[in-house]
Amino acid sequence: MPELSLAQAEIIADETLKKGREIKAKPLTVVVLDQGGHYKVVKREDGCGLLRADIARAKAWGVLGMGQAGRELARRAESMPVFFTGLAAISGGKLVPLPGGVLIHTPEGELVGSVGVSGDLSEVDEQCAVHGIKAAGLVPETGE
Amino acid sequence: MPELSLAQAEIIADETLKKGREIKAKPLTVVVLDQGGHYKVVKREDGCGLLRADIARAKAWGVLGMGQAGRELARRAESMPVFFTGLAAISGGKLVPLPGGVLIHTPEGELVGSVGVSGDLSEVDEQCAVHGIKAAGLVPETGE
Amino acid sequence: MPELSLAQAEIIADETLKKGREIKAKPLTVVVLDQGGHYKVVKREDGCGLLRADIARAKAWGVLGMGQAGRELARRAESMPVFFTGLAAISGGKLVPLPGGVLIHTPEGELVGSVGVSGDLSEVDEQCAVHGIKAAGLVPETGE
Amino acid sequence: MPELSLAQAEIIADETLKKGREIKAKPLTVVVLDQGGHYKVVKREDGCGLLRADIARAKAWGVLGMGQAGRELARRAESMPVFFTGLAAISGGKLVPLPGGVLIHTPEGELVGSVGVSGDLSEVDEQCAVHGIKAAGLVPETGE
Repeated sequence: MPELSLAQAEIIADETLKKGREIKAKPLTVVVLDQGGHYKVVKREDGCGLLRADIARAKAWGVLGMGQAGRELARRAESMPVFFTGLAAISGGKLVPLPGGVLIHTPEGELVGSVGVSGDLSEVDEQCAVHGIKAAGLVPETGE
Repeated sequence: MPELSLAQAEIIADETLKKGREIKAKPLTVVVLDQGGHYKVVKREDGCGLLRADIARAKAWGVLGMGQAGRELARRAESMPVFFTGLAAISGGKLVPLPGGVLIHTPEGELVGSVGVSGDLSEVDEQCAVHGIKAAGLVPETGE
Repeated sequence: MPELSLAQAEIIADETLKKGREIKAKPLTVVVLDQGGHYKVVKREDGCGLLRADIARAKAWGVLGMGQAGRELARRAESMPVFFTGLAAISGGKLVPLPGGVLIHTPEGELVGSVGVSGDLSEVDEQCAVHGIKAAGLVPETGE
Repeated sequence: MPELSLAQAEIIADETLKKGREIKAKPLTVVVLDQGGHYKVVKREDGCGLLRADIARAKAWGVLGMGQAGRELARRAESMPVFFTGLAAISGGKLVPLPGGVLIHTPEGELVGSVGVSGDLSEVDEQCAVHGIKAAGLVPETGE
């Protein structure tokens, strides 16, 4: 039964932050959610801004909420700004359409959760999340 | 007094989803509201994103909230984006101006409720809702 | 992979309401949630009060939120009233500790979702939910 | 300036959960907050209810919010239930007065953050939190 375990989520979070240190990213926050959009792991690095955990959650929750990865949401938000303003309200601030929100699939293709990273440029955030997911033997979907 | 019955709402919801399968739409969520804006029926297909029920509700609630169908709201939102940003907040996230929010009238022209569909492109969502309403012997108003 | 399907949720909801009619319960609303606490099906019978869908959701969501069934929550709420007032706020009104919130397990014992029923006495609500879950070949946990 | 580091918060969280497994507690969620009440670490064990992360946060946030540890808040809540109902609303659901919300001090006595644990009986939750804080070389204040 594919369900994201705490052990897997720990690997994802730790490897995400490890990649951040390796590429000298700014202090990051990483959030790993299960398929239902609930926290498995949150880690906020020292010096990372106060809102970063909520932004990282909104990246991660948003991709599960819409069933579309961060880059796809970002593209759609550019062409439909009013709709995405509405989504911010509908979701109670739990959705933001940005790279760095990445869906997690099993190698067999089943959706098991998502990762959100915030702290540096969205592309850097995303790079770290992708590394983390792969390090756990799972498959990232960025929307690229 | 014409009031939308659960039996009618069931037909609308079932036929909406049936049309979705027929045209190979992505997994859909359908919400049917009565004239007071309260749930009669919600159905979320397997694999449909976590926020889709709230989006479908916002499509359906919004058209009752404004007394104008989804396409009309969408046109107005383009020319009055700040107003619709305000509406998102005023309604507490219960309104989104998009095709796929469809008013339900009796053949005699009385308003009895609304349908909201979310999951695929708004035009596809709307097509399914229109089919569902007609299948129940009622009259859809899309705002076209 | 045990995941509550829309087809299963439909059986649960329909059989819940069928039992309600059979025992001449007041008009009911039934909500079926998946394991993540998200709507699969909502059905509100004609004449059922405006808040019933939110109450039924709070019964269903609350048992998933706490991992404890409705009767157990009701017993705990009696001895810990301040805590449960806090839970109402923490959950944003998504939890109410009452019979009629029933966990759904597979025959193998895996948690796959929950049912909430509201409209009549809590014991009557629960009786209908239990019947619905069994009719779908699944196993209810009421907390008794 | 003493500030709770991610490295310390990780030790606290890991040792909290390790103690939980050792004493065969139910699945737990542990939240570690910095002095400003913001997430450093969240870990939710497999099988732990959906609301547990928010409850653990409310235990942890509440002790920082009031500057009093969980057992002290619990005693006060018994004698002042209306006040604590107000606090639940004032804090927007970010406070619950229960054992298992533990203040973290340095050996020199400076407040650096808090821990909240939820999943088992409050006394068990607290026992695990106390172990975790001590394992990091820090000093727990439970309000006893």
